Amino acid sequence: MIKIWRELVFNTRAATDFLEITGALAADLQKAGIKEGVGTVFIPHTTAGLMLNENADPDVLYDLKMALEQIFPSSLNRAHREGNSAAHLKAALVGASLQLPVADGRLRLGTWQGVYLCEFDGPRRRRILVRWDGN
Amino acid sequence: MIKIWRELVFNTRAATDFLEITGALAADLQKAGIKEGVGTVFIPHTTAGLMLNENADPDVLYDLKMALEQIFPSSLNRAHREGNSAAHLKAALVGASLQLPVADGRLRLGTWQGVYLCEFDGPRRRRILVRWDGN
Amino acid sequence: MIKIWRELVFNTRAATDFLEITGALAADLQKAGIKEGVGTVFIPHTTAGLMLNENADPDVLYDLKMALEQIFPSSLNRAHREGNSAAHLKAALVGASLQLPVADGRLRLGTWQGVYLCEFDGPRRRRILVRWDGN
Repeated sequence: MIKIWRELVFNTRAATDFLEITGALAADLQKAGIKEGVGTVFIPHTTAGLMLNENADPDVLYDLKMALEQIFPSSLNRAHREGNSAAHLKAALVGASLQLPVADGRLRLGTWQGVYLCEFDGPRRRRILVRWDGN
Repeated sequence: MIKIWRELVFNTRAATDFLEITGALAADLQKAGIKEGVGTVFIPHTTAGLMLNENADPDVLYDLKMALEQIFPSSLNRAHREGNSAAHLKAALVGASLQLPVADGRLRLGTWQGVYLCEFDGPRRRRILVRWDGN
Repeated sequence: MIKIWRELVFNTRAATDFLEITGALAADLQKAGIKEGVGTVFIPHTTAGLMLNENADPDVLYDLKMALEQIFPSSLNRAHREGNSAAHLKAALVGASLQLPVADGRLRLGTWQGVYLCEFDGPRRRRILVRWDGN
């Protein structure tokens, strides 16, 4: 069993992007060899976040993007010269870490749940850190 | 000490509902027998979340429901046929997992803090997963 | 190695305040002596939260404050006599716990990431609980 932080790298595809990373996490869990425990996923960026949401109907993600744009418009930026304050706010509210249950050697998510890397200021190369703890 | 994921089941009571589950978690902690450590609570659903908030004045929860309705109206749904995209967004922002401190064999929350299962597309039968880690 | 919950105390400086606590956490990690693992930070309050965000340009935090005020105005309060329901909502969305990666005996945050205690109903004396787990 390997209980260290591992880094996974992803390329996001648009200014706002919800990239599903469930499969990459499941593959990493297999390598770690934990049967029962918890995975911690952390994103070391301030304009991207991590989210669990439905991975069945892509329309849900489309609606999420539109809604976030409407509620947190780029006009929220006032002072920051880079002009991406709305991205910082969205990242802060979505959150930078997740805990994922592991049982019987597999991710124990809900039937319709997927893990998403949320890009709010892309496209970019993004890293996440993953650690599996348990037995 | 039992360090496995356990499932607790709750019935929510309305379309939007903040159901306090602090007592059920405290009872589960007693069974687990952890004295010092951390509890991880995970909800395997995509239109419900987990939240810590005040459990003293029920008016706080009433205001939260009204405010969420105002900020994230159901008109945010555009494409998703089930029509509950606002519920998915609220769930994503509230979050699907919590860490709870355990000290002296008890939940070490703030004086006014309670743990809530946040229903955004109910009423429904909802499950949560709980794991206590420590000594 | 000391794997117990420790309490750190901070005084916030304004009604809305983002107080960086990264340095205090790094100092606490040194005392705990964990080389590889995870830190859990928990805030036992219901009108304050914990957030990771950029610590390079203070304009980002200024924009965040203004944007939160605009999206979650105090007029969201309807029933709660204390009148701080907007603070409860902001705290619920920002979140009450964080996981922080530890590697090589140090906090393994992103280059521009800092940990912030988010005050939404200050100024006040606030406590946080910290626990380091690992080897």
